[in-house]
Amino acid sequence: MLTPKFDNLVKELKVLPSVGQKTAQRMALHLLNHKRTQGIQLAEALMIAMNEIKQCQICRGFSDDDICPICANPQRDNQLLCIVETAGDMVAIEQTASFQGRYFVLGGYLSPIDGIGAEQLGIDQLIFQLKRQIDEGNPVKEVILATNNTVEGQTTAFFVSEAIKPYVGQISRIAQGVPMGGELEYLDSMTLGQALQNRGKI
Amino acid sequence: MLTPKFDNLVKELKVLPSVGQKTAQRMALHLLNHKRTQGIQLAEALMIAMNEIKQCQICRGFSDDDICPICANPQRDNQLLCIVETAGDMVAIEQTASFQGRYFVLGGYLSPIDGIGAEQLGIDQLIFQLKRQIDEGNPVKEVILATNNTVEGQTTAFFVSEAIKPYVGQISRIAQGVPMGGELEYLDSMTLGQALQNRGKI
Ligand SMILES: [Zn+2]
Ligand SMILES: [Zn+2]
Repeated sequence: MLTPKFDNLVKELKVLPSVGQKTAQRMALHLLNHKRTQGIQLAEALMIAMNEIKQCQICRGFSDDDICPICANPQRDNQLLCIVETAGDMVAIEQTASFQGRYFVLGGYLSPIDGIGAEQLGIDQLIFQLKRQIDEGNPVKEVILATNNTVEGQTTAFFVSEAIKPYVGQISRIAQGVPMGGELEYLDSMTLGQALQNRGKI
Repeated sequence: MLTPKFDNLVKELKVLPSVGQKTAQRMALHLLNHKRTQGIQLAEALMIAMNEIKQCQICRGFSDDDICPICANPQRDNQLLCIVETAGDMVAIEQTASFQGRYFVLGGYLSPIDGIGAEQLGIDQLIFQLKRQIDEGNPVKEVILATNNTVEGQTTAFFVSEAIKPYVGQISRIAQGVPMGGELEYLDSMTLGQALQNRGKI
């Protein structure tokens, strides 16, 4: 549209989620008009992140080094383990600042039809770690299964639960119910039905 | 939150317009999980664009070379000139595919209080070009003032119009009225009042 280098920038910006042609153009113009230095800094941060961020060898989350800051932090309770589908879920839980244990990232949900089974989800690696903690006299006391509240997430939680049962104290599932601020009138009936079934004593 | 390189990428992504913490995180996770190669391509496109895109020496729009593809295109009518505030406005007009003349980018609107006057808007350069076209026996026949339909844009259009009057045939102003699909009931009264005043015979 404008010049090849501009058009190429717009094209590449569209790799970002929810960024279409119009938004990509607006981004490119904004950077070119007002933010060239920051644009260069963004390019550098992108290059470093894409090339250098790897998988933590313990939790399988993202990490700059072999072991991520959470796994390397002696303040975190390593007898409490939260199992999530993705590193994004890990970020979301970290941001609640209400969890002080460690994580294990499955990297997806169980889907045999897509070839995603125990191996892809790292179940052997997980069990190896659980066993080692038992051998070290430091067993995991509670595993929280924080997979998504979807059919796939539920199936995955059940599958992981069965696999790790012999190696941990308690296995919990993250609560499923009415979200904060959720008005029953506007809630989908799946959530509402689940919230009724999972009702607790007060 | 996660790792320094991840956090830095999130921080730098927030330079993009309308991208806050949540969106930046989602972008970073998306690239890291699924699109590393494209992330590197984006970094390269950004670096090239930020460092190499310059101002066209004729129209002051963005260009890879000294003269932009539009100014260099002999098919474009150089007796028809559209004056816009920004390169983004130029992109928007190009995308209508309904203009075959050339452009001049002011780079903003008249704002003496911010030190933006004739010099900053390139009025001398504009007049120089108009005069040269007269000397070459190829005068600009029509200038379309396509500054924004804002107080500043209107003032700027009037100011530019006064400055270039001696050197051009006709001066027009882009039409101001009810936008396509605009329902009068929901239109702001400024637009509606202007549309009434600018009414045309049918
Ligand atoms: Zn880790
Ligand atoms: Zn040009």
